[in-house]
Amino acid sequence: MSEDNVVYVGNKEVMSYVLAVTTQFNEGSSEVIIKARGRAISTAVDTAEVVRNRFLEDVEVEDIEISTETLENEEGGQSNVSSMEITLKRG
Amino acid sequence: MSEDNVVYVGNKEVMSYVLAVTTQFNEGSSEVIIKARGRAISTAVDTAEVVRNRFLEDVEVEDIEISTETLENEEGGQSNVSSMEITLKRG
Repeated sequence: MSEDNVVYVGNKEVMSYVLAVTTQFNEGSSEVIIKARGRAISTAVDTAEVVRNRFLEDVEVEDIEISTETLENEEGGQSNVSSMEITLKRG
Repeated sequence: MSEDNVVYVGNKEVMSYVLAVTTQFNEGSSEVIIKARGRAISTAVDTAEVVRNRFLEDVEVEDIEISTETLENEEGGQSNVSSMEITLKRG
């Protein structure tokens, strides 16, 4: 239950993640963390911007972190992928 | 000359922006700002991560800002696009 306030952004359209984040806040979370990797990072930023500009105007960006994750592929090799966490806070 | 330390990330491959950022630092900038819009935001994050993990290990992420820009299209309509600025600082 500790990850209740985390929304993982992937390849779906932005509005489905906007809905997920908005629902978390409306169920009482004071903070929601949006996580994404690789190409989905752009969608994570879109999600944060749409939530705070169009749905919940008392929500602010509290923190943004970027990092690199090392993934193992099926052949046992490794590849690096950028990841991002955007922490939104309801004021 | 005031934008000398800004690197605009677009559709080229990551390494060309990594080179641009690394060159700015090596020419004496203490801070370089990476700017991107839309889908290029993921590439901007890749650029920052590759610079600090593989090229300049004394460089840190100083700040990350996200915002929304309104663009006018040729028909006079408007569309919103997310944008990001990553400020890297050499320690």
